[in-house]
Amino acid sequence: MNLQQLKKNVLAANIDLVKYDLVTLTWGNVSGILREEGLVVIKPSGVDYKKLKISDMVVVDLSGKIVEGKLKPSSDTPTHLELYKAFTNIGGIAHSHSLYATIFAQACKEIQCFGTTHADAFYGVVPVTRFLKKSEVEKNYELNTGKVIVERFHKLNYNSIPAVMVAGHAPFTWGINAEDAVKNNLILEKIAFMALNSELINPKLKPLPEYILNKHHKRKHGPDAYYGQMKNKE
Amino acid sequence: MNLQQLKKNVLAANIDLVKYDLVTLTWGNVSGILREEGLVVIKPSGVDYKKLKISDMVVVDLSGKIVEGKLKPSSDTPTHLELYKAFTNIGGIAHSHSLYATIFAQACKEIQCFGTTHADAFYGVVPVTRFLKKSEVEKNYELNTGKVIVERFHKLNYNSIPAVMVAGHAPFTWGINAEDAVKNNLILEKIAFMALNSELINPKLKPLPEYILNKHHKRKHGPDAYYGQMKNKE
Amino acid sequence: MNLQQLKKNVLAANIDLVKYDLVTLTWGNVSGILREEGLVVIKPSGVDYKKLKISDMVVVDLSGKIVEGKLKPSSDTPTHLELYKAFTNIGGIAHSHSLYATIFAQACKEIQCFGTTHADAFYGVVPVTRFLKKSEVEKNYELNTGKVIVERFHKLNYNSIPAVMVAGHAPFTWGINAEDAVKNNLILEKIAFMALNSELINPKLKPLPEYILNKHHKRKHGPDAYYGQMKNKE
Amino acid sequence: MNLQQLKKNVLAANIDLVKYDLVTLTWGNVSGILREEGLVVIKPSGVDYKKLKISDMVVVDLSGKIVEGKLKPSSDTPTHLELYKAFTNIGGIAHSHSLYATIFAQACKEIQCFGTTHADAFYGVVPVTRFLKKSEVEKNYELNTGKVIVERFHKLNYNSIPAVMVAGHAPFTWGINAEDAVKNNLILEKIAFMALNSELINPKLKPLPEYILNKHHKRKHGPDAYYGQMKNKE
Repeated sequence: MNLQQLKKNVLAANIDLVKYDLVTLTWGNVSGILREEGLVVIKPSGVDYKKLKISDMVVVDLSGKIVEGKLKPSSDTPTHLELYKAFTNIGGIAHSHSLYATIFAQACKEIQCFGTTHADAFYGVVPVTRFLKKSEVEKNYELNTGKVIVERFHKLNYNSIPAVMVAGHAPFTWGINAEDAVKNNLILEKIAFMALNSELINPKLKPLPEYILNKHHKRKHGPDAYYGQMKNKE
Repeated sequence: MNLQQLKKNVLAANIDLVKYDLVTLTWGNVSGILREEGLVVIKPSGVDYKKLKISDMVVVDLSGKIVEGKLKPSSDTPTHLELYKAFTNIGGIAHSHSLYATIFAQACKEIQCFGTTHADAFYGVVPVTRFLKKSEVEKNYELNTGKVIVERFHKLNYNSIPAVMVAGHAPFTWGINAEDAVKNNLILEKIAFMALNSELINPKLKPLPEYILNKHHKRKHGPDAYYGQMKNKE
Repeated sequence: MNLQQLKKNVLAANIDLVKYDLVTLTWGNVSGILREEGLVVIKPSGVDYKKLKISDMVVVDLSGKIVEGKLKPSSDTPTHLELYKAFTNIGGIAHSHSLYATIFAQACKEIQCFGTTHADAFYGVVPVTRFLKKSEVEKNYELNTGKVIVERFHKLNYNSIPAVMVAGHAPFTWGINAEDAVKNNLILEKIAFMALNSELINPKLKPLPEYILNKHHKRKHGPDAYYGQMKNKE
Repeated sequence: MNLQQLKKNVLAANIDLVKYDLVTLTWGNVSGILREEGLVVIKPSGVDYKKLKISDMVVVDLSGKIVEGKLKPSSDTPTHLELYKAFTNIGGIAHSHSLYATIFAQACKEIQCFGTTHADAFYGVVPVTRFLKKSEVEKNYELNTGKVIVERFHKLNYNSIPAVMVAGHAPFTWGINAEDAVKNNLILEKIAFMALNSELINPKLKPLPEYILNKHHKRKHGPDAYYGQMKNKE
């Protein structure tokens, strides 16, 4: 893939955020990376999705330096860059304030795996970060947002749980490319909605038995996957 | 009806799943059967609904052997086949992860009949299966999913309650044909939504009196039905 | 207004039920009346809204005799006729299974007036009928549904509270004509939604002070109304 | 900006209320002001949004006298005028009965700041007014509605919290112009929805740490803002 193609894909993935009803106004941004070139394409800050065009996409390197583009990149760019550096085989990142995932972020509540819909996409609990400290907020806030996400995944596998909620803020998801990151953002929103209501009607609800979690995740991911038409493998 | 007509109907019914807002991404599948020929038409696995065309439909026999089609059939095909074998006069099956029915599946909670909307379509409680055992999950998972559904209907009438929720998974519905199966999927979603909220505002709510359940079900179904224009009979 | 004009209006009002998202499938029906001629126009039973045309509209007299039309009238026709006989100055009736009003009907819970949105349309609590008795259900069910509604309004003013929920069933609303009846159906749905959630976040919530209820209702209705452009008066 | 341009903007902002799904039927109105000329443009009362055109817009002076327009101005005009007089640097006002903000108004419950989505737009708790007294309702009701809003902001900064809920009624929001006022109406609806559900899943939830509130608000507003493309400043 070349840079022009990546810009096109990242634009399309940003539009998908709107199509899937994951954003209000300009809240949200998607990026993609060319690993070999070390270049990241990201949405410009605060621009209306309906007016977004390929030439608006901003290209930065992993230090955050603007390589191409007339507009300011998303204010969340340092968070994206930190994730690309730490999660070395992801290809795209999506950030939204999708309502139900954001509700869990605000409530500082992790999303338990209550069903196979969750298990198909996320291999277990979707975690919440800790709150950033005062010093982490006041200086390099967006960079530190990336750092607490990475910290939260210290003992977790970011490939099998491609989603997190930042405490008091909102979700970040990732994937093999920008389109996949947005799909995970959509799935996160749906499983958050269902988890909230599942607990509402059964307050003593326990997580899905582990052997079903294992089965469903492996049905869609990894070497033994047999869902779909032999693509979408990790 | 011939095979070509059935493929057309099954495609249309799969599209209805999207039209009725019962699916996210590719979650869900609808099939239909030609009883005399023993042939089942089903959606291919993991294909985008927007790109689905008649030639993508997969034809299998009741043993699961592919008779026509270049794509892999839905991974849930063994579940469908098991239901066609056990429920000998159904003509179509729909599986979705529609949100509210899935919430009840996740919460392992049956849907009580709280109103005439429910009674019109389902003659009493909509049941939940037991969880599959570890051995049932690890080998022939989709076949065993069909088997626990059939087991759950041991003492129930699948013609008057054309819906079930698989514990921790999601709903399956059926009907006289693929279109009817999808309609039952839609109705299940609506009554699940209303049951959840009815209990929320009246935690001591009791089911609808049995004589009203009887009246409403018989108004729409069976020899004394008088709703509609003299069609849609079972 | 002549019969042809009424048919056109009743068709449009039935389509409004769909436009306002108050119906699923074919659940719901709207009628209108020519008082001088004693003729009622009503939706045919079980017909798809998208295929509904003027010539499908059924004309019955107040005894229920079909005067015009090739199709069977809505199975709820006897309920409509009973209401037209008892509520002598209404011009239209709408019945739907709109989700939130139906939730209150299922939960047998009246809708308290918690705000001015409610007060603008309904002058106080929106009532629920009692359940029909076994004998009332088994014979002349739809007629008796009309009778319990009328019974419920024995000490209520049907002009200032143009809505009711039938216990275990769903709402009926009415108005000066078919269009107005559908508008009241929509408003009922919205205030039901808001009442449910208002009590959820404030379980001790008390109804709106009576002097505000009075003010808002009279701002829109009656001789001193000053909302709108001098029309829509009762 | 001249009067013709303002009419166009106020019309567009009223249409935005519909586009953002903040209104049912004709519930809601938006206005804008030319400060130098002392002229306010506002939606006419009770007119269908779909039929609204520039020539329907009503121009009044700050005493409420109609300067231009054949239709009656919104019945809430005295509320708008009172706010323009007291909040001397706002340029637009939006009133809706958007469902979740109205739920908080009905429940007389303030909206706590539980997340950065809230903090980005509103600098702390969004307040509720007291109920109007009987005498305030019976005479000059709409004027007094404006007065209780102003009273509620006695010790609050209307520039950093551009929203309020009137007890038992619904929200009013404002901004630098009519479009901005509508955007704040939309944001209020979304944060109300998320606050309701955040408390539902975590009843002991505490507000966002103050240092994060400060950071997020200042990221978007004031001299040190760095979100967006160097516009939309207050």
